[in-house]
Amino acid sequence: MKKELYNQLLELSPQLKKEFLPSISIDCVVFGFHDASLKVLLLKLNGSKEWGLPGGYLHKDEDLNEAANRILKDRTGAQDIYLNQFKTFGKRNRSEAFFKDFPDDLWHKQRYVSIAHYALIDYSTVNPVVDTFSEACEWKDINDLPEFMMDHEDIFNAALLQLRRDLNYKPVGYNLLPEKFTMPELQKLYEIILDKKLNRGNFYRKMTRYAILEKLNETRKGGAHKAPDLYKFDEEKYKAALANGLQESW
Amino acid sequence: MKKELYNQLLELSPQLKKEFLPSISIDCVVFGFHDASLKVLLLKLNGSKEWGLPGGYLHKDEDLNEAANRILKDRTGAQDIYLNQFKTFGKRNRSEAFFKDFPDDLWHKQRYVSIAHYALIDYSTVNPVVDTFSEACEWKDINDLPEFMMDHEDIFNAALLQLRRDLNYKPVGYNLLPEKFTMPELQKLYEIILDKKLNRGNFYRKMTRYAILEKLNETRKGGAHKAPDLYKFDEEKYKAALANGLQESW
Repeated sequence: MKKELYNQLLELSPQLKKEFLPSISIDCVVFGFHDASLKVLLLKLNGSKEWGLPGGYLHKDEDLNEAANRILKDRTGAQDIYLNQFKTFGKRNRSEAFFKDFPDDLWHKQRYVSIAHYALIDYSTVNPVVDTFSEACEWKDINDLPEFMMDHEDIFNAALLQLRRDLNYKPVGYNLLPEKFTMPELQKLYEIILDKKLNRGNFYRKMTRYAILEKLNETRKGGAHKAPDLYKFDEEKYKAALANGLQESW
Repeated sequence: MKKELYNQLLELSPQLKKEFLPSISIDCVVFGFHDASLKVLLLKLNGSKEWGLPGGYLHKDEDLNEAANRILKDRTGAQDIYLNQFKTFGKRNRSEAFFKDFPDDLWHKQRYVSIAHYALIDYSTVNPVVDTFSEACEWKDINDLPEFMMDHEDIFNAALLQLRRDLNYKPVGYNLLPEKFTMPELQKLYEIILDKKLNRGNFYRKMTRYAILEKLNETRKGGAHKAPDLYKFDEEKYKAALANGLQESW
């Protein structure tokens, strides 16, 4: 790490110690979907070779979910994004070693238990924010990831696993697809998230059982094949499924 | 709270402060299943009217999952129980108010962010442990719960919701049912956890698709009706499903 970054962080340390709870950090895995590709938002600290997840700390008088949303907003400008808190990472030495060459009075040099969240958004709608500590904040393709700092690769992998599991009881797609879409387009979204091909008939039947789609009296025109039907999400049913789980689940 | 309990806790406070990370607690929702009923393990602090979840703190040099297992073992004598970390509770004032009438030098009087875990076990195999701070540690029927302290009712409710959701991608039943069981017995287990009746045919089809059962060449004899087939879990497939998710999931 660059000497200047260390000096920057050290200067801030007394204030951070006053404002935030000790030993607790928050990390956000922000998945971005757009045009048939899935990316994740990563940043690179000044002078560091490795990339990390956007994160921060919990104010002494702030609710945990407020803190996670504040951190996400600071990084992306995005507001009112639903964050899924999915796992807390608490192995010893997960963070302590990162600043091991620096004096103990550095706020960042302590054992942190990190409360991880993930979100899935249309990345064309947000603007990654580079702060004074970072030299880059970028969307990276999940199939071509750089080297991660600390245990952030574990956190990323756990987030992706959880996102995939959540497809079993939560709907997905709203705000990621255009308002009207075809069943193959929706299937493609699932296939990209799951990173596997799905059987077309099974997908259609399962989606139909979820009862969150409204079939429109329109078709997608212009292709060489038979024009496929257009659908949209039934907003009320979609929201109910988000709150209470999909009908297909137990 | 009784004066004696306070004095006990105050005396311990310097030691606790030395041993544990500040502001972090761990709570365990231990579901016990036996003989067609679902219970939860609760304890009652000396002189308190309300009941709480078994919990504790994180040693400065202890992994988070080690701490959760230590706390569970201390309370139940149970070892090697798979704990599902499911959510971290971090609203401000969730715990601060509980000791508000006591001086600030009490370790227990601080803001705690609680990392919650759940487990599902056969309650006939464990022994609840009453420690010196508690006057009772008991299994309570989940349909007849006492008043909870702090936000422990929220934690309990979230655990039950998560357990039900997890049925969509994790198998359940091993160690809860006898080695050989009938499909109606397995269905009953699901119905008790989900607190709803399931359609027999759908249940049979869904379970069969999960491909974790082995049908035996035996039937349960002795009833008035046609003797139902006996099954057992295919241990290898069960464990694979626990690790990788059920086949039925996406």
